[in-house]
Amino acid sequence: MTTNLFADLPTNLAAELTQTLAAGPGVRVERIVSQGHASPPGFWYDQDEAEWVLVVRGAARLGFEDGALELRPGDHVTIPAGRRHRVEWTTADEPTVWLAVFFSAGG
Amino acid sequence: MTTNLFADLPTNLAAELTQTLAAGPGVRVERIVSQGHASPPGFWYDQDEAEWVLVVRGAARLGFEDGALELRPGDHVTIPAGRRHRVEWTTADEPTVWLAVFFSAGG
Repeated sequence: MTTNLFADLPTNLAAELTQTLAAGPGVRVERIVSQGHASPPGFWYDQDEAEWVLVVRGAARLGFEDGALELRPGDHVTIPAGRRHRVEWTTADEPTVWLAVFFSAGG
Repeated sequence: MTTNLFADLPTNLAAELTQTLAAGPGVRVERIVSQGHASPPGFWYDQDEAEWVLVVRGAARLGFEDGALELRPGDHVTIPAGRRHRVEWTTADEPTVWLAVFFSAGG
């Protein structure tokens, strides 16, 4: 009945792996696994939903139009809806496990 | 701009510490820190919201009317709205850091 966030970590990932762990009206909890992945050059996420994101394991760098954020295990940040961002880098040494909660930004 | 989930862990907790990390309509992301805490005898949580909960660090046991669940780092479970549960035990050895996402159960 429990699941472990570190179970079934793929060792050879062609693309980022995204899995929904829980969901309800206007909310989605996702596990994302990256290993050496980054957003394509010039690509920006521009989302209708707000996103709270935590790096649980690994290391990553998020890019924003006004700078970048290095994320290590335990680091988390809320990305408001419409704030353009991209994954600039994730470590190739080990899987980076992200936990992301997407939620409606409206009131 | 980032915050770390393991920052400012209290070392002497009279009661569980709950902090809201992000929130939107119908959703709330909380960090909960326990150390040796448990629900009072006979106490049950009976929530209107669904809860997805992850143990990030430490160790805990959740009780349900039909059994118990041991949780170690990375273990997560969704507790539907109205499913009675309690915290039976958290380790006294170190802080247990929970991540909980509460969300509306309705459609």
